[in-house]
Amino acid sequence: MKDLIGVALLGQSGGPTSVINASAAGVFIEALKQENITAVYGAVHGIKGILNEDFYDIGQEDLEELKLLRNTPSSAIGSVRYKLKDPKQDPSEYERLLEVFKKYNIRYFFYNGGNDSMDTCNKISKFFKKAGYDCNVIGVPKTIDNDLYGTDHSPGYGSAAKYVATTFMELYHDATVYDTPMVTIIEVMGRNAGWLTAASALAQVKGQGPDLIFLPEIPFDIDKFFEQVKTMLAEKGKVIVAVSEGIKTTEGKYIATAFLDLYRDVRKDAFGHVQLGGTAQVLADEVAKRTKAKVRAIEFSLLQRCAAHLASKVDVNEAYNAGRKAVLAAVKGSTDKMVGFKRVSNDPYKIKYALLPLKLTANTEQKVPIEWILPDGKGMTQDFIDYALPLIQGDDKAKLEDGLPRFARLKKIRVPKK
Amino acid sequence: MKDLIGVALLGQSGGPTSVINASAAGVFIEALKQENITAVYGAVHGIKGILNEDFYDIGQEDLEELKLLRNTPSSAIGSVRYKLKDPKQDPSEYERLLEVFKKYNIRYFFYNGGNDSMDTCNKISKFFKKAGYDCNVIGVPKTIDNDLYGTDHSPGYGSAAKYVATTFMELYHDATVYDTPMVTIIEVMGRNAGWLTAASALAQVKGQGPDLIFLPEIPFDIDKFFEQVKTMLAEKGKVIVAVSEGIKTTEGKYIATAFLDLYRDVRKDAFGHVQLGGTAQVLADEVAKRTKAKVRAIEFSLLQRCAAHLASKVDVNEAYNAGRKAVLAAVKGSTDKMVGFKRVSNDPYKIKYALLPLKLTANTEQKVPIEWILPDGKGMTQDFIDYALPLIQGDDKAKLEDGLPRFARLKKIRVPKK
Repeated sequence: MKDLIGVALLGQSGGPTSVINASAAGVFIEALKQENITAVYGAVHGIKGILNEDFYDIGQEDLEELKLLRNTPSSAIGSVRYKLKDPKQDPSEYERLLEVFKKYNIRYFFYNGGNDSMDTCNKISKFFKKAGYDCNVIGVPKTIDNDLYGTDHSPGYGSAAKYVATTFMELYHDATVYDTPMVTIIEVMGRNAGWLTAASALAQVKGQGPDLIFLPEIPFDIDKFFEQVKTMLAEKGKVIVAVSEGIKTTEGKYIATAFLDLYRDVRKDAFGHVQLGGTAQVLADEVAKRTKAKVRAIEFSLLQRCAAHLASKVDVNEAYNAGRKAVLAAVKGSTDKMVGFKRVSNDPYKIKYALLPLKLTANTEQKVPIEWILPDGKGMTQDFIDYALPLIQGDDKAKLEDGLPRFARLKKIRVPKK
Repeated sequence: MKDLIGVALLGQSGGPTSVINASAAGVFIEALKQENITAVYGAVHGIKGILNEDFYDIGQEDLEELKLLRNTPSSAIGSVRYKLKDPKQDPSEYERLLEVFKKYNIRYFFYNGGNDSMDTCNKISKFFKKAGYDCNVIGVPKTIDNDLYGTDHSPGYGSAAKYVATTFMELYHDATVYDTPMVTIIEVMGRNAGWLTAASALAQVKGQGPDLIFLPEIPFDIDKFFEQVKTMLAEKGKVIVAVSEGIKTTEGKYIATAFLDLYRDVRKDAFGHVQLGGTAQVLADEVAKRTKAKVRAIEFSLLQRCAAHLASKVDVNEAYNAGRKAVLAAVKGSTDKMVGFKRVSNDPYKIKYALLPLKLTANTEQKVPIEWILPDGKGMTQDFIDYALPLIQGDDKAKLEDGLPRFARLKKIRVPKK
């Protein structure tokens, strides 16, 4: 195997997490140490930055600031939601990527993202190989949804799960404080996989969580839900519900759409556009009509994916190490792989880093095993708790400056265009 | 002055905060030390618990658990939203309170709450005095709204302000991550006073906060707002807006109501009830109609008042001390007072505890000084920053157990009814 000498490039892609920058720190700091890497670039807004020859020169950043990336949420070099065309239909974008890689002598490419990004990585890797261009391409996983196939879990999930569990515990204390009937419906991200909503079960097993937990893996029985809420209200006066944004009715419809079908003439804006409320809000509106309880809908919205002040230490470390391992694997000659985790044991928690074929992980969603989900929204089995609990351990957050987090401040010096 | 010997009673009232239990810890732990206090009770759901003779016997709790109350959010003994009738119109409830106080020999009464609670305290104190019943009544302030008159600030505000500022910084990183136009409108609690929304300026001065900040103290010019958003979108592609839930139009209408007047036939549910959206959501819907940007509304909802994991150390300490000082003042003979803070200096930050006449603080709202608010939603003056910054300093949170906060677990043993 001949030595690959050239530039290393990192791109960040998709929705941010609390620790995607921890992976960036791992890639940058490790790549800057490598003899075969002549320069380290960051793609400005992922794949778009490459197409536009728009790069930050990471070598000009202070090492101390790069270290602060560990605890800085979101994507420091800019993210993107952009799907490349299928190279079989239209190879022009891939040809452009190849042209740019050649022009800047980019020989190491790291892409930090979810399912779509691993698919992109895989296609780029294959295209370059076919074109005879040597470039080692390694994917670094990230997703709060935890839906990447092939790895035990993904960086980003642990911190988001810790946010969800902690916040459910706090909300439990708030939402049960009065002696009047109250229903609180809390919406958690996750269109198809319910991993993050399931994390509310970590609060539930402490006796400080939701009464009902609904994941998209199980069809949502609307009528049964209303009956459950009514029964619980009568029994104890307070009901807290965790719902995944992506729960669907037994007919396979999203909740907001389902209610639209029932009440077709309403929920339109001034111009007649249909307004799709959040899942929690729609359910809350309907519960309010059916009971005399006070009802409140809460959406964690972006907060659950950027709350770096509540990051899990395990997650931050694994995200950082995933970035480092990607670089180390690439300089040793690996390509067309994603860094993944294999769990060795739960207690004590131990994982091994592994290199998975990109093709394996690309575009396959890893859902919550059905056998880990208790029936009737009652929560999760001990298997899930044993799986998730190690991932939320420890704190690791930015130090305070004026009582507020001191996040990384990059100089963001552009690489001159060639 | 004769020695008052008898039971001490604490009630918690109104919306929870992250530190109302820190004040409870201060009251309980200090009261348990006092020779003249024969027992320490907690009223179950505030004034309702007293009317129902429903008390927890705090003397039976473990001291270690009482100490954990410092970092446990919300109201551990239950809160209440219940306004006593005016004693001049109907003295029956006050007579009942007096009957209960006499029956249990309650000689020290501490009520932890906001404006309404201080008014309740004041009326109870006056009624007991008139009836010749010796009982020292001390109010302990609490409110995330910071609208209590007479005190420099109130326990609960510092932690909520820290939550708001920190979360705005994190959301800034998330909401600016793509290279596509985006408007994010974030709603903060505060019906009439904008203190909490103003805390977003602490993130703004770090360059990681909202572009526009709107408080209820200043009429909200809807047309101007849309123009500002459009101009900013054209200039920099991203706009982040902080709005108080209570902002009103120049005609004095809440935002949701104002838009209802414009689009009277929409925003009704299946039964024709008008649906009042949140302020942020209504503005977001309207911005979405007027621009091509992606628009998102976020509500901090209950999270901002129960996020004990992000409490300010200054706030936790002051809340705890306010509880302690209330007990010490009462046993020394003070009554009909509220514990308040007087600021000695900003840098170094120093306050003095003071006893304020309950009448002074009851039912008078302390709003943000107009001269601290920059015109056109541009933020806050340095005077506000100097005022607020010391209040969010330091961390003080529950230690972790299984990666999650170990909140207090009280035994909640009822006092036998007499």
